[in-house]
Amino acid sequence: MSAFSPSTLQLIKALQAMPGIGRKSAQRLALHLLDKDRSAAVNIQNSISQALENVVYCKQCQLLWDEDICHICTNPKRDNGQLCVVESPLDMIAIEESMAYKGRYFVLNGKISPLDGIGPTELKLPLLKEVAATTKELVLAINPTVEGDATAHFILEMFKNTDHKITRIAYGVPFGGELEYLDQQTLFHAFTTRSDI
Amino acid sequence: MSAFSPSTLQLIKALQAMPGIGRKSAQRLALHLLDKDRSAAVNIQNSISQALENVVYCKQCQLLWDEDICHICTNPKRDNGQLCVVESPLDMIAIEESMAYKGRYFVLNGKISPLDGIGPTELKLPLLKEVAATTKELVLAINPTVEGDATAHFILEMFKNTDHKITRIAYGVPFGGELEYLDQQTLFHAFTTRSDI
Repeated sequence: MSAFSPSTLQLIKALQAMPGIGRKSAQRLALHLLDKDRSAAVNIQNSISQALENVVYCKQCQLLWDEDICHICTNPKRDNGQLCVVESPLDMIAIEESMAYKGRYFVLNGKISPLDGIGPTELKLPLLKEVAATTKELVLAINPTVEGDATAHFILEMFKNTDHKITRIAYGVPFGGELEYLDQQTLFHAFTTRSDI
Repeated sequence: MSAFSPSTLQLIKALQAMPGIGRKSAQRLALHLLDKDRSAAVNIQNSISQALENVVYCKQCQLLWDEDICHICTNPKRDNGQLCVVESPLDMIAIEESMAYKGRYFVLNGKISPLDGIGPTELKLPLLKEVAATTKELVLAINPTVEGDATAHFILEMFKNTDHKITRIAYGVPFGGELEYLDQQTLFHAFTTRSDI
């Protein structure tokens, strides 16, 4: 006989829809919320409700934000001449934390992946062209994966006949990394793109 | 600058209250719910709301259930002479799936853990004595950990002067297990409790 009531089973199933949450994890989470911490459950419920109501895509950079235009797009201190294209807000955080970049962003919220039905339109690449109209440099900070490379290549083609300077962040041996443990591809790339010192 | 709006940050913080969900996981889950699958978010919200409203502890066995008395306690086919004490509904599922037991249960929803402020009253052990009044055998199916042993010991003391037969499920080498990889304690226990064949 099941140890979960219909309402509990429904909650378990709902939690399982999240990435990385399997059946066992969902069971554990549901029991925790119902048995140990009902105030956390109420909190999640309210936060979801409020976020669903407030959060929209920034009309310019596509970042998920509480207003139509996000805090970076409205910030007069950011350099309007540079536009950095990233796959996800998580990548954006990493870049912001590195303090290496002071321009604006365009968040793809994904990458080209024909198998998953994600093409240029789903990534709102036509909008990228519009947003980039007033910028000089387009910095591609896209992950060096097969899909990331395809996305970068597509963007490159898109801007072929424009005056934009298009750059891509450098790939190579990370600081603190050890050659001994590095994958072949990264090392190969690091050698072929070596520079004078 | 943060890549998360105030509403998103609040959702991330709420999700982090769940066990095993750290900051990075919570960020990923929140982005998934807001960017990729808003219907899943609505579903979680509704399921939490419904579960919080419906789910209560069974008045007899303390299982989380949608009614005051659960489906096992009201099932006339279960043996009322046996009462199996488990730490959690997840343990109960494992036992039910083994088809080894047809009696009733008492779910502790925890184990004695003074450091976490969980004592006999928090586990509703006084209620266990009440519920066990009409049963002959008390089967302890409590995990063989320090806290589980303390809980089992406490229950044993509680029923010292009653007529109950008290048993504990066997601990030893699991089927399919290999001695080579087994921990010392289990192997030691398996030797000291060896039986004639």
